[in-house]
Amino acid sequence: MVLLPLCTKFLFMNIPRTSSPRIVIIGGGFGGVALAKKLAKQEVQVILLDKNNYHTFQPLLYQVSTGGLEPDSIAYPIRKILKDFSNFYFRLANVEAIDTKKNKVVTNIGKLKFDYLVIATGSKTNYFGNSEIEKYSMAMKTIPQSLNLRSLILENFEAALLTSDLNERNALMNFVIVGGGPTGVELAGALAEIKKGILPKDYPDLDTRMAQIHIVQSADCILKGMSKKASEKAEEFLEKLGVNIWKNVRVTHYDGKTVTTNTDLAFETETLIWAAGVKGATIKGLDATELITRDNRLLVNEFNQVKGFEHIFAIGDIANMVTENFPDGLPMMAQPAIQQGEQLGSNLLRFIEQKPMKPFTFKDKGAMATIGRNKAVVDLKRFKFQGVFAWYVWMFVHLFFLIGFRNRMVVFINWVYNYVRFDREARLIIRPFKKNRKI
Amino acid sequence: MVLLPLCTKFLFMNIPRTSSPRIVIIGGGFGGVALAKKLAKQEVQVILLDKNNYHTFQPLLYQVSTGGLEPDSIAYPIRKILKDFSNFYFRLANVEAIDTKKNKVVTNIGKLKFDYLVIATGSKTNYFGNSEIEKYSMAMKTIPQSLNLRSLILENFEAALLTSDLNERNALMNFVIVGGGPTGVELAGALAEIKKGILPKDYPDLDTRMAQIHIVQSADCILKGMSKKASEKAEEFLEKLGVNIWKNVRVTHYDGKTVTTNTDLAFETETLIWAAGVKGATIKGLDATELITRDNRLLVNEFNQVKGFEHIFAIGDIANMVTENFPDGLPMMAQPAIQQGEQLGSNLLRFIEQKPMKPFTFKDKGAMATIGRNKAVVDLKRFKFQGVFAWYVWMFVHLFFLIGFRNRMVVFINWVYNYVRFDREARLIIRPFKKNRKI
Repeated sequence: MVLLPLCTKFLFMNIPRTSSPRIVIIGGGFGGVALAKKLAKQEVQVILLDKNNYHTFQPLLYQVSTGGLEPDSIAYPIRKILKDFSNFYFRLANVEAIDTKKNKVVTNIGKLKFDYLVIATGSKTNYFGNSEIEKYSMAMKTIPQSLNLRSLILENFEAALLTSDLNERNALMNFVIVGGGPTGVELAGALAEIKKGILPKDYPDLDTRMAQIHIVQSADCILKGMSKKASEKAEEFLEKLGVNIWKNVRVTHYDGKTVTTNTDLAFETETLIWAAGVKGATIKGLDATELITRDNRLLVNEFNQVKGFEHIFAIGDIANMVTENFPDGLPMMAQPAIQQGEQLGSNLLRFIEQKPMKPFTFKDKGAMATIGRNKAVVDLKRFKFQGVFAWYVWMFVHLFFLIGFRNRMVVFINWVYNYVRFDREARLIIRPFKKNRKI
Repeated sequence: MVLLPLCTKFLFMNIPRTSSPRIVIIGGGFGGVALAKKLAKQEVQVILLDKNNYHTFQPLLYQVSTGGLEPDSIAYPIRKILKDFSNFYFRLANVEAIDTKKNKVVTNIGKLKFDYLVIATGSKTNYFGNSEIEKYSMAMKTIPQSLNLRSLILENFEAALLTSDLNERNALMNFVIVGGGPTGVELAGALAEIKKGILPKDYPDLDTRMAQIHIVQSADCILKGMSKKASEKAEEFLEKLGVNIWKNVRVTHYDGKTVTTNTDLAFETETLIWAAGVKGATIKGLDATELITRDNRLLVNEFNQVKGFEHIFAIGDIANMVTENFPDGLPMMAQPAIQQGEQLGSNLLRFIEQKPMKPFTFKDKGAMATIGRNKAVVDLKRFKFQGVFAWYVWMFVHLFFLIGFRNRMVVFINWVYNYVRFDREARLIIRPFKKNRKI
């Protein structure tokens, strides 16, 4: 038991100051966890701060929203990741600001001094300043948000049963997804599978053919970051599943009932899912305009050092590292975060020993998206393929990157079960959303 | 699609009135579901109302609270139970009252006429009129409640890390369970396992030996409803696990900080878990004093008919059926509910055909409780045994009664994993409890 003679209760968070250099990591996402693992059993003290006590496997959030997976199987306790390493401390904390002059992190549970700071706060939903959409739309960046969406979808169908007003019923069964990136595409595919496989059985007294799924995409294709072939195939798969894709359309307003766009296209819907973009989750003290670039990200050099600082680093979505192939910064995805986390681990140890750090180079392992049963698109460096085999690759890769043996087993069993039975059993309204809605 | 010419939107809940007699069941617990299954494909229209869209397997709620199981694996969508039966309707509804004169059920989504009504509302936590305890204590009768408790337990340990005030730290690590029935005993055992297996690894910088688990029991033994041998063995098992058992003590007050009792025993704790009793979940319109007996239950005859009514029935926890062996009414457990539900299914069909109903006889299959790893007590009619074998029997029986193949698989995998790894991975604070607490 560590008992420090503290005058203020939360000061320093009851963490002893040792002779080892102290590295504070903010965020236990892909980047933060990869970095933490690299620093295990080294001559450094590592303090990981996160507002949740678990790591979220964000690529599978859409399966939580659509009842295919239980939330607990894509979350993993951060303490368990760190439990074998005696040089580690975890604190459940909201980081409120960074004091770059005093080298302190300011949190809701007190201040913490650092020798080296790594910002791995990731990204959050980007509403591009539209507060009306922020208020009325659903996001899918966190587990609670995904559970809210799961509840809302199910509550909508229960409500659709009760009304004889056709417009109202259609609005309840209309799902408008804004954004044709992987999140939007995968969610649309899952919703289409539900419409086909689950709704007719669960709601025999409702004409579930009326349920409509729309993707509204501002660009002229979906899956913009992938190959032309992947984009075209994904569109073909989605259209076969009955998803309506509206390209070159921008959503401009949503008042909780009506979606309007920059064209004469409009929708009546109770559910607008905003998957149109993310932006860096910056922190006060490091949000000066000279540091922040496109998408609200912190400008870093090839060693992940934040511009103007030697001992403050940023990795993953929050870090904007410009490379030759990516003049707008590396993509905001798991791969750059993991690779930067790993490399920063070795670089930090070198830096502490006053050895030169190695510049980061991104090994682009490709991108993939699944559209539904037996359907996925995969872009690897050398191979691009679509269809059933791509779907197997997608599943294998996602199982592989999921943290924890138990999680992998549970996800695997769910997938096999869902595949064989055309089912999704986690269609549970554990916490009703509508009555708690912010409206 | 059913389109009825309705003047009021929610009137009759969009359910067509057919020539078949209409049976309305309130509650999708053990009793309601057993009854519903019996009425499948019969010449009756069945409408099941529940405030949740899922059936809860209550005996395993304590494992959700203690991170051993994900909530979704002990919940099962009610619509899926009913999906193959065309004579069934489910409505997600809070039943507010019963109009026994007009034969109508009054709900938050409208009124519903019935020919036959079955009340299967189960039970709720009994605070014996102590509103202070109701306000500050934690209950464990529903999935959201169990998740709140899970969050609180984990939040307490995170908070314990931050304080250097020893009294405050001990209060955070002190767990007081009121009630030595199966719920209290099983929860205490699980908490003791966490203390032993998880806390030292998750919180290396906290002296988790200071964590204390108390059971406060008003009677002179725990597991009062079971055999003397079971009770004694359970006590022995719990004491070996380090649980403190206080018998012949009644908790009288709890203000969120201090528990006082009718003796000079008192505890400082942030967590009081109230498992001291349940009472019938009665409904307005059927709560007249002449109908309500001990524990707030509705008096029923041997056909489960509510006293004074021919066509209103009650089954399970809410029904008080007095038999020779159970002069205070059948125990409020799953077995009587399931058996009554099944029998009422056949009886209702007989009743509708104007044939005589068969009186209910309870086949007491015994009782069991698990205390922790390799430890359980089982009372069967002929055999009473305790220890490892009892533990296997306990697991087998619980897996068997769980609804759904997927749930069984996921629970089984979790149990094997938890057993082999001495672990409980669902230690996730998905929705923090403290900041939302009603205090």
